[in-house]
Amino acid sequence: MNLIEKSIAAIKPLNQEILEKANERLANQARPAGSLGMLEPVSARLAAIFGTLDVRLDNKVIVTCAGDHGVTEEGVSLFPQEVTPQMVLNFVNQGASINVLAKHAGARVRVADLGVNFDFDADLPIFHKKIGKGTANFAVVPAMSREDAVRSVEAGIEIVNELLAEGPLEILGTGDMGIGNTTPSSAVIAAFSGIPVDKLTGRGTGIDDAALANKIRVIEKALKLHQPDSKDPLDVLAKVGGFEIGGLAGLVIGAAAAGIPVVCDGLIATAGALIACERAPAARNYLFASHRSVEVGHRFMHEHLGVEPLLDLRLRLGEGTGAALAMELLDAATRVLCDIKTFEEVAIVDAQKK
Amino acid sequence: MNLIEKSIAAIKPLNQEILEKANERLANQARPAGSLGMLEPVSARLAAIFGTLDVRLDNKVIVTCAGDHGVTEEGVSLFPQEVTPQMVLNFVNQGASINVLAKHAGARVRVADLGVNFDFDADLPIFHKKIGKGTANFAVVPAMSREDAVRSVEAGIEIVNELLAEGPLEILGTGDMGIGNTTPSSAVIAAFSGIPVDKLTGRGTGIDDAALANKIRVIEKALKLHQPDSKDPLDVLAKVGGFEIGGLAGLVIGAAAAGIPVVCDGLIATAGALIACERAPAARNYLFASHRSVEVGHRFMHEHLGVEPLLDLRLRLGEGTGAALAMELLDAATRVLCDIKTFEEVAIVDAQKK
Repeated sequence: MNLIEKSIAAIKPLNQEILEKANERLANQARPAGSLGMLEPVSARLAAIFGTLDVRLDNKVIVTCAGDHGVTEEGVSLFPQEVTPQMVLNFVNQGASINVLAKHAGARVRVADLGVNFDFDADLPIFHKKIGKGTANFAVVPAMSREDAVRSVEAGIEIVNELLAEGPLEILGTGDMGIGNTTPSSAVIAAFSGIPVDKLTGRGTGIDDAALANKIRVIEKALKLHQPDSKDPLDVLAKVGGFEIGGLAGLVIGAAAAGIPVVCDGLIATAGALIACERAPAARNYLFASHRSVEVGHRFMHEHLGVEPLLDLRLRLGEGTGAALAMELLDAATRVLCDIKTFEEVAIVDAQKK
Repeated sequence: MNLIEKSIAAIKPLNQEILEKANERLANQARPAGSLGMLEPVSARLAAIFGTLDVRLDNKVIVTCAGDHGVTEEGVSLFPQEVTPQMVLNFVNQGASINVLAKHAGARVRVADLGVNFDFDADLPIFHKKIGKGTANFAVVPAMSREDAVRSVEAGIEIVNELLAEGPLEILGTGDMGIGNTTPSSAVIAAFSGIPVDKLTGRGTGIDDAALANKIRVIEKALKLHQPDSKDPLDVLAKVGGFEIGGLAGLVIGAAAAGIPVVCDGLIATAGALIACERAPAARNYLFASHRSVEVGHRFMHEHLGVEPLLDLRLRLGEGTGAALAMELLDAATRVLCDIKTFEEVAIVDAQKK
């Protein structure tokens, strides 16, 4: 049994007893039943993950997985590939958007190189998990071998295990960096859903109409050429995915195996979550969708996963920025469940009980 | 010139120079232009309010305005009127939803009695601004006199001024408590917009179909009977409003006059904001809509105000809970503008500049 299978076997179901207790407490709080909307099921699920009504998400980490993409040769992105390593260094130097928003959320940012086309200094404080220096151009050949697809997912699982070895961790956020990576992400949801590519492909960092039409053609051509097997998530990852997308899938499986909630960010992080949950449906209990991005494919991913994003702020950045913002809502949800008093506790007339 | 007119005259326009500088900095940050969605204009507007790119919302207060409503005689609510004072005491004892969510947001909660049908102890640490012990039943007579409408708005302005006298204050959240108060709130937006009452009336704390049909009839009848003048916000407030709605309007005018951003909560707080901005359009520059609630009338209010809510979590609680959650996003927005580095600062290739 390899690391992926071992980790999937370790995923526990939710604690149903605590889930029921949580829902009972929510229903008895001194406020109209259901009035805190989406915060309520979120709080109950967090309780069921941790097996307690008093969940404390004190140690938060966002892992931003970086990788490059051979498909940028097809002109699918506005930015050149060299921006990927530049942004990795920007993350390490604390100057990027994710650093700012993670700090606000009380989360640490950890960067992982899954496949950037650049030789980072071995001393750079990142997770060095390079599978290759960018994927192959999947408009021509598969993005990576099946072996490399497995290795990229395993790398994500290893990162979770290494984080846990460092110290306590109660919630993991997943984010991405990789020029061109909305193209494989759109290809992944197209492969799983069968929805026409032109319905789920967006403008990424801001390409124009002609470039968008080209991006759609590139994805359509690749799906036709490689025929990824939607019943085999690792085949989808290998043929039209990316190294960081594999890593992001591994983070979800690893977190679920460790009994830790994981909140995924935008299109690319959710592509990883999709591969994880197609391979390991039990992981879905540990997954929270942070936000609905501008990228049109994102909503199809959420529908396919059966998860509802917490935020809709027209973000389209990635890096884990939406995950950081949503962590604050998850934190608030834990306090909702635990700290709001019940009708009995405050002796207020309860209309529902009449 | 009375307090309302004086306060309106004191509202300053936004600092256009800082607004331009903020937009320029946002456009030059090392990320795709516009990629942080709604956080960007929010951050720029906060900068323009405070006249600096480095806004710090260190002192946050949520004022929860309470009042009772004679229209509850018509059976428009699930809960009895006695719950209003019980919840006021719950707020003071820190056991309610708003206490929990405000604490999470780093905000203090202050409660104001604008018109609760209960004699609170004079020593109770709330703003004692009672205009009357509940409004009159507006299905039969106007909710209050024009004089009382003016007094309720003035009371809200006074609260802001008293808070400022206590110490520094950088952001104000507005919330409500008052059994029956979705009925006057729906009446207020119906009066201003002319939209049919059945299109903008919701279930409040959870009434059934028959009670909803009755609630709609009650509002339709009142609008027909009193003919509130949509060009005269104080007439609307007097005829179909509520004391806490007047107070909530005063909070918005008072905050705008003091140059402080104000984030409004749900249907009732937004009804107050609507009255404020109809009377004082310049106040809108200081107003942020926290969330879109389940109450169907809320979206019509936002459309009428021309503001876009930050959250959509299916909340329908009030108290200021949505305002508390949104304060964390406003806080995050201030850091986005100030702390994310520009392309120049981190020497990264900028596709937009090519």
